[in-house]
Amino acid sequence: MSTVAASNRTLLAVIAGIGNGAGTGAASARMFAQQGYSIALIGRNQASLDRLAEEIKTSGGNAAGFRVDVYSAETVSQAFTNIRTHFPSASYDLRVGIFNATHLVWKPFLEVTPEDVDKSVELNITAPFAFSREIIVELKKNDLNAEGKRGTLIFTSATASIRGNIMTSAFAAGHAAKRSLSQSLAKEFGKDNIQVSHAIIDGAINTDLQRGRRNDPAWEENPDVRLNPESIASAYLYLVKQDRSAWTWEFDLRPAHEKW
Amino acid sequence: MSTVAASNRTLLAVIAGIGNGAGTGAASARMFAQQGYSIALIGRNQASLDRLAEEIKTSGGNAAGFRVDVYSAETVSQAFTNIRTHFPSASYDLRVGIFNATHLVWKPFLEVTPEDVDKSVELNITAPFAFSREIIVELKKNDLNAEGKRGTLIFTSATASIRGNIMTSAFAAGHAAKRSLSQSLAKEFGKDNIQVSHAIIDGAINTDLQRGRRNDPAWEENPDVRLNPESIASAYLYLVKQDRSAWTWEFDLRPAHEKW
Amino acid sequence: MSTVAASNRTLLAVIAGIGNGAGTGAASARMFAQQGYSIALIGRNQASLDRLAEEIKTSGGNAAGFRVDVYSAETVSQAFTNIRTHFPSASYDLRVGIFNATHLVWKPFLEVTPEDVDKSVELNITAPFAFSREIIVELKKNDLNAEGKRGTLIFTSATASIRGNIMTSAFAAGHAAKRSLSQSLAKEFGKDNIQVSHAIIDGAINTDLQRGRRNDPAWEENPDVRLNPESIASAYLYLVKQDRSAWTWEFDLRPAHEKW
Amino acid sequence: MSTVAASNRTLLAVIAGIGNGAGTGAASARMFAQQGYSIALIGRNQASLDRLAEEIKTSGGNAAGFRVDVYSAETVSQAFTNIRTHFPSASYDLRVGIFNATHLVWKPFLEVTPEDVDKSVELNITAPFAFSREIIVELKKNDLNAEGKRGTLIFTSATASIRGNIMTSAFAAGHAAKRSLSQSLAKEFGKDNIQVSHAIIDGAINTDLQRGRRNDPAWEENPDVRLNPESIASAYLYLVKQDRSAWTWEFDLRPAHEKW
Repeated sequence: MSTVAASNRTLLAVIAGIGNGAGTGAASARMFAQQGYSIALIGRNQASLDRLAEEIKTSGGNAAGFRVDVYSAETVSQAFTNIRTHFPSASYDLRVGIFNATHLVWKPFLEVTPEDVDKSVELNITAPFAFSREIIVELKKNDLNAEGKRGTLIFTSATASIRGNIMTSAFAAGHAAKRSLSQSLAKEFGKDNIQVSHAIIDGAINTDLQRGRRNDPAWEENPDVRLNPESIASAYLYLVKQDRSAWTWEFDLRPAHEKW
Repeated sequence: MSTVAASNRTLLAVIAGIGNGAGTGAASARMFAQQGYSIALIGRNQASLDRLAEEIKTSGGNAAGFRVDVYSAETVSQAFTNIRTHFPSASYDLRVGIFNATHLVWKPFLEVTPEDVDKSVELNITAPFAFSREIIVELKKNDLNAEGKRGTLIFTSATASIRGNIMTSAFAAGHAAKRSLSQSLAKEFGKDNIQVSHAIIDGAINTDLQRGRRNDPAWEENPDVRLNPESIASAYLYLVKQDRSAWTWEFDLRPAHEKW
Repeated sequence: MSTVAASNRTLLAVIAGIGNGAGTGAASARMFAQQGYSIALIGRNQASLDRLAEEIKTSGGNAAGFRVDVYSAETVSQAFTNIRTHFPSASYDLRVGIFNATHLVWKPFLEVTPEDVDKSVELNITAPFAFSREIIVELKKNDLNAEGKRGTLIFTSATASIRGNIMTSAFAAGHAAKRSLSQSLAKEFGKDNIQVSHAIIDGAINTDLQRGRRNDPAWEENPDVRLNPESIASAYLYLVKQDRSAWTWEFDLRPAHEKW
Repeated sequence: MSTVAASNRTLLAVIAGIGNGAGTGAASARMFAQQGYSIALIGRNQASLDRLAEEIKTSGGNAAGFRVDVYSAETVSQAFTNIRTHFPSASYDLRVGIFNATHLVWKPFLEVTPEDVDKSVELNITAPFAFSREIIVELKKNDLNAEGKRGTLIFTSATASIRGNIMTSAFAAGHAAKRSLSQSLAKEFGKDNIQVSHAIIDGAINTDLQRGRRNDPAWEENPDVRLNPESIASAYLYLVKQDRSAWTWEFDLRPAHEKW
């Protein structure tokens, strides 16, 4: 476990957006657990949180779930209060935060309701601001690790963050704001040796949800056309391992055959 | 008045963000009034709205103010209900909408409160979504004008819309979202001959507010370093006059000596 | 002729890229001639140059053609030597430069020859650098005009300038370089009250060339789907008329129904 | 050596831009050599090429230098002819190409000579087009490797590729073109399972050259303010190891305390 600090303190990663436990958030949780991190899982589905925490513990890791009914400033802050109780700072160094929660709104503009806008705002702006605050406050307390960093905050995002389009007005606006937030944070906290990164996922991820929607075995079995959650998680682990001399704010991830 | 339709119907422009009547919104109102548009003014300051409406009427134009206490989906929609009563569609063609309301939040990230985020969201996302919906619904009812357009929706924005930075996390996130919205709308409603434009104002505007903040006569008197509201209004008038064969979504406006 | 200086000096515009006299360069020449500018026309086709100069003179304007066999640093510089002889600085103020020459290379990358690359480089980089140098040197000599400017340099460009794509490697690389040049110049010479602008033309222009290629009367007659050269020229005239307090570096121009 | 194909064929990486053997190109050569790649080194300095090749061989690797006197379409193609003779395709699979040659031109625009422009063009456009052609032709011959790829082409670039600025007109134009090329290639050859990546290096690299220029021990010893060549090389190795389901075209690399 090369990233564990010299002390007997335990590394902690907080990952928001676990979904049904089959996507990027869950893959990241598994991968960081294998690297020796304890994992705080934030999600809306208690059963998924429990199942994933149990799976990680069965594999010799340490994890706990923290349910939010919706993503908002209040619920995210409350989740961190609970995380601090469960993983007290006396023993745990929060080193990694991943905000991965998302929800696609796909509608012509005139069908987008104020509620759709509010939902995109809460998930993509209000909650990320709260999540970032909680993570940054904790990362600032850390010593520099072997890579010369206090920690890493990663946002899972989408091509919509750099391009508004027909059918995506609410979704894209939220993602553009989230991207902007990540850039502001990267600039402000780089000088504190805190890395903030923004991953532009360009393509469909091979998840239960996508497989159910598509019902297209050819798509499922074609490794050239969809992103594996594990490959995205590997990218996040690489970001965390980048040293302070050369780290990344923004990068895209897409399947080989994606048209763009 | 070359842009007045052949019928005896009157052109109407709705301009949100009048402030104290000395900035871009007010300059736009005066300029479109001179072009023969009736003007619906939306703002938070009743005295400013009254004063500007009176000034326009004294100059031979037609204007009325519609106060909102804050900018939100509800207040914006209510303002349009009132506008429709005052400027009934039996006589008025709403052809131009300008969303110009803004408010700078300039704070280190850890001092940004959830209320700051909410305020930036309301002003830069929730209200623009509502404003856009009201404008688009009306523009779609119009015939094509001489330029081959049903109308124009313009967003006043800032460099922050394309760049997050230290001290601007909330402001920039809101503007990035507003920019994304404008792009989604431009793509979706271009096919309906509705133009949507996004003006990136890069620099300080020569307003009462800026003059008060700066208290710097050299700055006030140096025409190379600040934007005149009238020059921005001229740009908006040019956008409205662009014909359907070659119109603009996005452009920047900055003073000659601005460093960027 | 509102833009003519108070003195009895004559305004001069230099426009490179006249093609067959039916496109953006020629439309710009006609429009600036109508505004009282004398016009120096640079192009590769002597007959087109002659015809357009004659047409402008017949309409009461003043124009002369300066042929280049290819666009290169040498030929462009030589053209300006000839322009200075024909339109001597004792009588003429060069106030506007428009670089409009272009040539589409549309090939899979492995079919792009070193000659294709060289041609794109000469037309989109070498020649624009030379053209810019000649224009900037002249503009710096001018007094400030009524708009507070010494002059304006405009580049006609394309969406390829911001996006490389299949089939456009050489074309897009050249345009990306030209766009970058325009930004460097805008930043460096703004402080000298010289405006530099970059027009992203996104769509097909309604020219003889396009009409011949397409042979599609429906396209020709549909004003929603192609750019009129005259509308682009109007945009350039608007840029020239922007005052120093609020001018534009970059903007896009596209037809109402363009998909993007 | 996890990336070696199952056969007894040897992996080959071609790296252009070795400089004095202390920068990114050399660090990449050492790192890929440690991963089992044979290395073809392209550079202008024969002594550096010899020294680095010898060093790699002494460490148990395999390397050879291929000198070019300048970077041009012809010299790059000739280098590949020599590479094919030295590392015949009967035994070697060219899997990785890295174009790393660069040269800073830092001058006010009016001091930039046509020769400066030509040099930037050759180094940043002509040579990369030729290099890309040679690499792509070879990569297309490969089978898919364990990551589902035929190979990877990486361009070392700079922030200038996305932003022209005062003093950098020639440098930035060349880099903007190179970036555009990389995007065109990424889009065209993704469908052939060939990855093309563009690394935006934002900051000063800790090289002999920079140390000599700066003569600033505080800078040299401050790991927060300059990029280590080895960290950039690690990023390139990570790119090569990305699988086809989630790979990266563009990313930035900067030191923790870089202002941007």
